Order: sequence, then structure tokens, then C-alpha cells
Amino acid sequence: MLLTNCHIATMAGPAPYGALSDAALWIKEGRVQWLGDAGEVPEAARSGPKTDLGGRWVTPGLIDCHTHLIFGGNRAQEFELRLTGASYEEIARAGGGILSTLTATRKASEAELLQAALIRLDAMLAEGVTTVEIKSGYGLDRETELRMLRAARQIPDHRDVDVQVTYLAAHAIPPEFAGQGDAYLDQVVLPLMAEAAGLGLIDTVDGFCENIAFSAVQMRRVFEAAKALGLPVKLHAEQLSHQGGTALAAEFGALSVDHLEYATAADAQAMAQAGSVAVLLPGAFYTLRETQLPPLQAFRAAGVDMALATDCNPGSSPLCSLLLTMNMGATLFQLTPEEALAAVTRNAARALGLSDRGVIAPGQRADLAVWDITQPRELAYRIGFNPLYKRIKNGVL
Amino acid sequence: MLLTNCHIATMAGPAPYGALSDAALWIKEGRVQWLGDAGEVPEAARSGPKTDLGGRWVTPGLIDCHTHLIFGGNRAQEFELRLTGASYEEIARAGGGILSTLTATRKASEAELLQAALIRLDAMLAEGVTTVEIKSGYGLDRETELRMLRAARQIPDHRDVDVQVTYLAAHAIPPEFAGQGDAYLDQVVLPLMAEAAGLGLIDTVDGFCENIAFSAVQMRRVFEAAKALGLPVKLHAEQLSHQGGTALAAEFGALSVDHLEYATAADAQAMAQAGSVAVLLPGAFYTLRETQLPPLQAFRAAGVDMALATDCNPGSSPLCSLLLTMNMGATLFQLTPEEALAAVTRNAARALGLSDRGVIAPGQRADLAVWDITQPRELAYRIGFNPLYKRIKNGVL
Ligand SMILES: [Zn+2]
Ligand SMILES: [Zn+2]
Repeated sequence: MLLTNCHIATMAGPAPYGALSDAALWIKEGRVQWLGDAGEVPEAARSGPKTDLGGRWVTPGLIDCHTHLIFGGNRAQEFELRLTGASYEEIARAGGGILSTLTATRKASEAELLQAALIRLDAMLAEGVTTVEIKSGYGLDRETELRMLRAARQIPDHRDVDVQVTYLAAHAIPPEFAGQGDAYLDQVVLPLMAEAAGLGLIDTVDGFCENIAFSAVQMRRVFEAAKALGLPVKLHAEQLSHQGGTALAAEFGALSVDHLEYATAADAQAMAQAGSVAVLLPGAFYTLRETQLPPLQAFRAAGVDMALATDCNPGSSPLCSLLLTMNMGATLFQLTPEEALAAVTRNAARALGLSDRGVIAPGQRADLAVWDITQPRELAYRIGFNPLYKRIKNGVL
Repeated sequence: MLLTNCHIATMAGPAPYGALSDAALWIKEGRVQWLGDAGEVPEAARSGPKTDLGGRWVTPGLIDCHTHLIFGGNRAQEFELRLTGASYEEIARAGGGILSTLTATRKASEAELLQAALIRLDAMLAEGVTTVEIKSGYGLDRETELRMLRAARQIPDHRDVDVQVTYLAAHAIPPEFAGQGDAYLDQVVLPLMAEAAGLGLIDTVDGFCENIAFSAVQMRRVFEAAKALGLPVKLHAEQLSHQGGTALAAEFGALSVDHLEYATAADAQAMAQAGSVAVLLPGAFYTLRETQLPPLQAFRAAGVDMALATDCNPGSSPLCSLLLTMNMGATLFQLTPEEALAAVTRNAARALGLSDRGVIAPGQRADLAVWDITQPRELAYRIGFNPLYKRIKNGVL
């Protein structure tokens, strides 16, 4: 398939957006075979099928590299209670917080979890997402965590999308282990990690390092176990306070460190040396009305690649739009529009350890998005508007 | 047409959301004829056509009561320049600010203006909008202002939506009148208002009262002229500083006063006495990274009705989603989810002086939205997700 009459933001190479004007792109067997000037299309490509893109822009398919897409229920009641002035106690008594999601998720069947996730996923696909990461972490017991992981694994049977599955049993301490984080690690998180890895259900291991969740000392135990199983790691770190999770994650060569509002310049240096991507989550920043900004200048100065993701979850970021996330990254964190696009393509792929996507280049997977825009900067500029013309997954239009 | 098997957030009456559970709604000749308990459907309604809504929620059709939907070009370049660290001078030299929109709008034909607006409008209709207000104000000369007003007036020929057209020649001082605001009023704003009113192109008169636009003394002249023509008024006031526009607007019985970040408790009192609605525009607050919050407690205390609108415009709010605006109203301004829904239905209708819509009651226009939600609070809770099932305009499904 030859895509003709288009401009391409390759997100590779030195030009802004790695842009090629008046270009063509040849897809063969689900991969990008060639791309370049419209006047220099290879002989072999000229004889096959063609699609005229009418002067539109092609970008890499978008990658949402941090989501909690699978969960039961929603937290609209808690959202309303908070805004009508209910106290934290009243909200807690109404079963608020992560506990309410835990309860709803434990009750839900695998089919119910899958169905609810697909509704949210469809909103993402409609914006050109071709790869999505999904975490467990609302079960916090063996059966429910396995159910979440299995639901995530089977999504590609139902939608044309790649899913990276992340094991996040170290998300919170469940009520049955209240005050006994280490016992929860010993009895659930660590043995279940080995079991689920054996079943092929885990691509990456994650955790929440925060004073309301797990300490850096505890997260070290999780990462040691992941390392022993040969699983790459990432971490929710320095979101609400500085706990030292970033330094730990860097020590273990984490694919990414995520949130990072309270990260320091030293953390940025450590991430740069480890090659860890900074995954920024402006949806949670916005929802929590946070005022502490992640240290962007430190990341830029240290050469840390920055990604953006929805953090789609029922509590702190009930957000399904990666385009809006790009705008939030630009508006709230002051990323440039080009940084925002790299953040949901090239750097999001790196945050997932995937080297076959995120840029448009020969040999890369033909995961593409075609947009009704006149310049790529419009993708971050608009708010609540979806200019997607066509999503292409593995070369299939 | 009888709508069965639904819940209805009437936005009228004492219950939260004016809610009716397990209800039915009878539409006759484009109006709501009856609504009530599913078990009490009038005999006459039972024999006609029926639509089963599958237990979904019905709300009034959404009303976006403050937009600048019609304009030429976009301001993505300026957005990018600002984020890449360009100075204000460099942006000005690149033709930034309202001047760039002025130039692009003056160049655009009526058909081009209409076409560009319809693309943005379609995003709004997809979220259940059934009435939209549209302002002129990017022409600032006779021909272009008339072209904008005509483009707005003809939208209902192309889409199933009602349009309220607002004359906003007092939006800014055009470059050809730089430093001569009064001359611009005398030579353009006032005579053109009379002409356009005579052509039936104006429903309401608006202005921008700010130190970068028109003073309260100048706006009084605009309002006197509107009054003489029998046109209702509204005002962009106290957005960036306190200029006294609100008191002036209240004196003229304005339908609404809009923005209001710098309004005072005395302003709220004046608005309450005048019956003016407070139209809050969180998209501009968000885009400008404003920190001064509009005085919600003063509005509540004084009994001022609050509306929310996208303020869709290419500079300070390139926002096309009224659902996202509801979430921003709740998250940024702390409106309750019920206030946020009233703000885009009942109070938005009041802000436009329309008494035949905005609530669901017998005799009201059958402008409705049907949602895939389990509670109306979910409409403000979700971010970047559209649960619309069906839009109903004048009873047409
Ligand atoms: Zn997360
Ligand atoms: Zn405005």
C-alpha cells in the first residue's frame, strides 16, 4: 500500500517534528518499507494499491504508556461528595477512595472488566492510539489481579491495538493487610509476580512509592524479585512528596519513572544515566489541583526523554483523551507542541521498551495516524477536538 | 413519540437534578407534552410510536451560551511560539494575538467562515448541544462583521441546531483605529449595530470591557445604542482586571456577564438584582493559566445563576467540548456536578434570554440529550470522554 499526497511528521531526524513535506509512504507486510519525497517513490511501490491522503499529515500512531484502563465501577459519587463539601470521613464512610474501586473490581467478572475497559479504549482508538499500556493494581489479591491481567491480555482479540501489560500489585496495601505492607509483599505481591510471569501475563513490573503506599525500601524488594524474573520495571514516584523512588528506579534501570512532580535535579541526572523516560501525567496534576510542577528544565538539561500519558483511572484522572493530555502537557507543564507529540509517540514507545514503533522510519511497524490538520502543532493546541482522519494499525487502513 | 425506559434529569423541581427515575416522556409537535412515571403514561401517548431508551438518562439538550465559533485561521503558531520561548515582540512581529485572527477573518469568504465553523460545531453537536450562541467580533469593520453575522445566521440551514447571534464589534479596537476607541465606536460599532439590527442579524449586543479593549464609559455608549434598538445586552467583564463593567451591565439589565474572575461581592449583588446570569469560562482560565478564581461563593450567596460555556475561540480558549467545560467548571472552579449541568442547560438558556428550553417540562421545546451513564454526576466527572447516546432536536431523534 502506497500512501500518497501527504506530509509526514516522522518524529525522527533533525527537522522540527522530523517533518517531510509532499511525501509518500510505502507499507509492506505491516511495516514501513520506504518513505520520502513524493517524486521519488520506488518503482516497486508505484505498481501496487494507493491511497491519496489529500494533503493531510501522518504521524506515528499514538501510544498511551501509562493507564489503569481496567477497573470496576467509577468514582463519580466521591467526585460529587467532595464538591458538595462532604468531609474526608464522610467520603471514607461512603466507601470512597481506592477502596471503592478495589471493592467494585473484586466483584466484577473478567468479562465485565473487559467490557468496561473496551468502552474507554474505544475513545482512545478514535484519537489514533495504536498501543496502550494497562496496569493491574485494583485487585490486590491473587484472583483479582490475575483477572485484571488476563482481561488486559485478551484486549487484542477484541480490538486492533497492542497492549503492554504491567503488574501493579504494589499499588496500595489492601484493607486485609492494613499496616502490614511487608506481609502483603511476602504473601501476595512477590509470589503472585512469579506465578503471573510464569503464565506470560506480565510485560513489566510497577509500583507506587509514596507515604500512602510503599516505601523505597519495600519497592526495592519488588524490583529485586522482578529482576530475578527478568522483568523490566517502572515506578510511580515523587507524585505527592519526595520519597526517593526515582533514585531506586534508576538504580534498577527502570524503563520509566512516572508522575515526578516532586523529583529533583539529582533525580533527573540519575534517570538520564539509567536511560529512564520521565512519564508526565497532567490529568492527575489537573484533577488533584496540584501546584508543584515536575522539573521540566532539569529533565531537559539532563537529557531525560519525556513522555505524556492519560493515567486513565477512576480516581485521580478519569481521562480518556491522549490529545487532551498533549494540550494539558503544553498548557500546564509548558511542553512545546513538538515535545508533546514526541511524548505520545517516540518517548512513549521508549517508556514501554518498544523499539519497533513511535517514529516513522523504514522497518518500523506501520502504526500511523492521519490527521485533518495543516501543521502538527495543532495537535497540542486544540482542546476537546479530535481531528483524526484515519488510524492505521500494522499497515491496515 | 413516547420515550420509554429512561431516567430524566429535568433540571427543574426540587429533587437533585430534578430527577425522575423509571420515567417516560411524550413528545408532540416538537415539544414536551408530558413526562412522568413510566406507569402513568397518558392514554393518548400509549398508542403512538415508542422508543425504548434502555434505562439511559435524558437531560435537556446542552446549550453553549458563549462562543466565538466563527473565525478565520487558527493560532497554533502563536501557541507554539510562546511555548518555545519567543518574546511577545517576536509573537507580535509574527502577527500574533487577535490581529492574526482579524487578518485571517477579513480574508475569508462567508462560505469559508461557515465551513470552518461547521467543523467545530459538529464536535459540539456530537456532545448533545442543541443551541449555541455565536458572536461576531473578529472583523471589526462593516463588511467582515456583517459576513460573520450572516455566516452565523445561516448555520441552522446546514445543521439541526438553534443559533443565537451576538453582535460583538466592541471586541477590540482594530489597527486602523489604534488609540481611537471612540472614533471606532462612532464610525463603525454604533452605525453598524443599527444597520445589522435592521437586517435582523442581531439577537444580542456584547462588548469587551477591559483595559486592553473598551472602558466602562465607552461600553455605556454601546449599551445605550442597543437599548435604543431594543436589543438585550451582555458583557465580557472583569476577566483580567476590575473595570466596573459588571455594574454597568447590571444597570442595563444584562442577560449575562461573562468571565468575572475579578468580580466582587458587590458585583454579584448587582447581578442578582438585575437577574443577570454569571457565565463562567474555565477554558480561558485554564489556557491563560489564570489563578484568580471567579467569586463563586459570592454568586451563590447573592443567588446569581451560573452558566458555563466553551468560549470557543482561537486564542484564549480553542475548546470545542462543553462536556470538558463542565469538568473544568467542577475541577477548576469547584462547581458541583449538579451546578455544572444546570450551567449548560437551565442557566445557559437564561443567559440567552430563552425561556422555552434548558429544563425538561411540559410545553418546553423537545431539545434533549440521552446519555450512556448511570448517574447525571458522571457528565462532569469524566474527562475527555463522550457518553452521548442520542441527540434530540425539536423532538426529532
Ligand atoms: Zn498510575
Ligand atoms: Zn468571549
